[in-house]
Amino acid sequence: MPRIDNLTSLFMKFPGIGTRQSKRFVYFLLAQNPHFVEQLAYEISILQKSITRCGECFRFYTNNGKLSENNVCDICVNDTDNTTILVVEKDTDFESVKRSGNYTGKYFILGGTIPVLTPDPTTKIRINELIARIKKGAPEGLQEIILALSSNPESDFTREYIIKTITPTTKELGIIITSLGRGLSTGTELEYSDRDTIHHALKNRR
Amino acid sequence: MPRIDNLTSLFMKFPGIGTRQSKRFVYFLLAQNPHFVEQLAYEISILQKSITRCGECFRFYTNNGKLSENNVCDICVNDTDNTTILVVEKDTDFESVKRSGNYTGKYFILGGTIPVLTPDPTTKIRINELIARIKKGAPEGLQEIILALSSNPESDFTREYIIKTITPTTKELGIIITSLGRGLSTGTELEYSDRDTIHHALKNRR
Amino acid sequence: MPRIDNLTSLFMKFPGIGTRQSKRFVYFLLAQNPHFVEQLAYEISILQKSITRCGECFRFYTNNGKLSENNVCDICVNDTDNTTILVVEKDTDFESVKRSGNYTGKYFILGGTIPVLTPDPTTKIRINELIARIKKGAPEGLQEIILALSSNPESDFTREYIIKTITPTTKELGIIITSLGRGLSTGTELEYSDRDTIHHALKNRR
Amino acid sequence: MPRIDNLTSLFMKFPGIGTRQSKRFVYFLLAQNPHFVEQLAYEISILQKSITRCGECFRFYTNNGKLSENNVCDICVNDTDNTTILVVEKDTDFESVKRSGNYTGKYFILGGTIPVLTPDPTTKIRINELIARIKKGAPEGLQEIILALSSNPESDFTREYIIKTITPTTKELGIIITSLGRGLSTGTELEYSDRDTIHHALKNRR
Repeated sequence: MPRIDNLTSLFMKFPGIGTRQSKRFVYFLLAQNPHFVEQLAYEISILQKSITRCGECFRFYTNNGKLSENNVCDICVNDTDNTTILVVEKDTDFESVKRSGNYTGKYFILGGTIPVLTPDPTTKIRINELIARIKKGAPEGLQEIILALSSNPESDFTREYIIKTITPTTKELGIIITSLGRGLSTGTELEYSDRDTIHHALKNRR
Repeated sequence: MPRIDNLTSLFMKFPGIGTRQSKRFVYFLLAQNPHFVEQLAYEISILQKSITRCGECFRFYTNNGKLSENNVCDICVNDTDNTTILVVEKDTDFESVKRSGNYTGKYFILGGTIPVLTPDPTTKIRINELIARIKKGAPEGLQEIILALSSNPESDFTREYIIKTITPTTKELGIIITSLGRGLSTGTELEYSDRDTIHHALKNRR
Repeated sequence: MPRIDNLTSLFMKFPGIGTRQSKRFVYFLLAQNPHFVEQLAYEISILQKSITRCGECFRFYTNNGKLSENNVCDICVNDTDNTTILVVEKDTDFESVKRSGNYTGKYFILGGTIPVLTPDPTTKIRINELIARIKKGAPEGLQEIILALSSNPESDFTREYIIKTITPTTKELGIIITSLGRGLSTGTELEYSDRDTIHHALKNRR
Repeated sequence: MPRIDNLTSLFMKFPGIGTRQSKRFVYFLLAQNPHFVEQLAYEISILQKSITRCGECFRFYTNNGKLSENNVCDICVNDTDNTTILVVEKDTDFESVKRSGNYTGKYFILGGTIPVLTPDPTTKIRINELIARIKKGAPEGLQEIILALSSNPESDFTREYIIKTITPTTKELGIIITSLGRGLSTGTELEYSDRDTIHHALKNRR
């Protein structure tokens, strides 16, 4: 049935959704009350209009209709703590750190990671934007760049690339680069930990 | 962010979707090109308007704007094979049988199964509608009701209930009731088969 | 530690057991009371001595020390039902059928299946032994060979090969060949069934 | 078949092994060459005789027939680094740390963890033996107890209990207590990290 097939094929584009589940989504919607379906269609239709990407940290934020001067988010506008910029891969990482409530400084969204052997890494992450952000931050009191990337080969490779690329700038501006501490994360079994994790866990013992 | 939270909570109502994945859906949509998002919103908004539930077999079908006389689907309207009605639990079961291309008769969607110990089963499945459908079918040449339910305790219980409930009607009208054959289904390992499956597989050997 | 490593490497040969679990087995045994460990070592040491492969159906059976005349198992010796031979891939399949309590005839263990594209299939299963068994069975009242193989590509291919290979013999002896019935096995969801299963389930409906 | 059933029921006592797999183990052994089976039975039978639990760190070690004076393992006998004792839950944790090659001091195996709400924790872990070990270690240069427990509620509870219980002794002897560093372990996705892990990862950044 055309209508059902159209919507099914659209849902199949969603991350992690296959034929079976997208079809289930469609029949689920068919069985819902019209109000729910209208609301869903409405929220989807206005999503991109009401959410903007911040011109400074590149995270998505609600613009409440009006755009702040030169389109900057509430966190970047706020002037309380300019000493650190925490660099994450994507918006959901930003949300995790924000939720943890342990950090009061600025953020920067890379927009991805660099697969090993990528010919032109600059196209994969916002490296030039990051350098520009650092230069802009220096006179405002920026002292430290915190690389808050995940811990896996691709993220590690990306971190190395960033450090290599921004060091000339940070050196010149007297800004230090740090990375998240390594060790046992919640739920880790010592028995199954790799030498690297054990090495860091021993070094960071307290 | 209100907009993102609203949409996240709507996606969380989808079958099998938790907080994490609905949030991923939202960020996925934020990153898509506006055309895709508009198309999705559009297809969702018109879904229920363009799909109707057939008044005779109760499956969803495309009405192409205009409703057929007393809202009956193409299969029910078609007059070639009125000898059998294949009774399934839900629309996706109907689709599997349809796709298999082995069946040319009529269908009937129960709309669910009956959990064991349900006080009033008639509210769980379209049992009265089924009886009405059988009475309507008799003069048109209906000879057999095929109960095509899944093979698990709840479906088995539902089948027993249907047989018990429709038998007076079918007996009187000289209509027989059959159930799908049991045996090894594709992918079944004999080693892990229960006594029941082996019993049927031996009985149905050919 | 040599001893621990030796035993670990032996357990790693067990089906489906990796380094981690075999190591866990060893530490598990270290922590058991000596009696349990002795008993385990004893049962393992006498296993092959007390279990023989039947010379007629090729299943493993307990010889209770003494071997029955020309090494035949209790089922093959027993003379009540010689009309059918049920052919299975392996001993655990035999056990499933036996446990199901639906079958009173004879058995035959193929000893495996034939991977598609095997140059010399006769080395993979006891096909010659099966033909010999059929010839021996004929004068004793054998009327039917039941191919009780699993339902997957390799088993299907094996079944085709067996039918092709034994047909000349069975034709000549007036013995029929049957296969287990196909259809919904316990636990099968109609929604996820392939066309083949639905096809058989419809054909075998009753 | 008694023999097969006996061995099956013994394998079923193995950690993580159910009926089906233990039966597969038995048929696997039936099919192996006798030499392999004898070797397995032999290694199992001598395991406990050739492995002893060290009287000082309580780990299992090979005694090579003769027991070292008052039954102490090679690591505990060795006199190079007496400054630290690394306390782990079980032997496999010891092996992980040993393998990582980052630690040269002494070890102590607790022999388990303490389920929350245990009436008498002293029966669950070697807490008294640990205190005795600390007192013995002090004159030999012991300066630090490293609690190398896993990171989960039960292990955390156990660590708290140990700290509370040994502190009087360590205080008096001027020995410090440390725990493994927390942070991102290899393979951790920032997005899925809990507030606690992010909190430590930020604090331990370098």
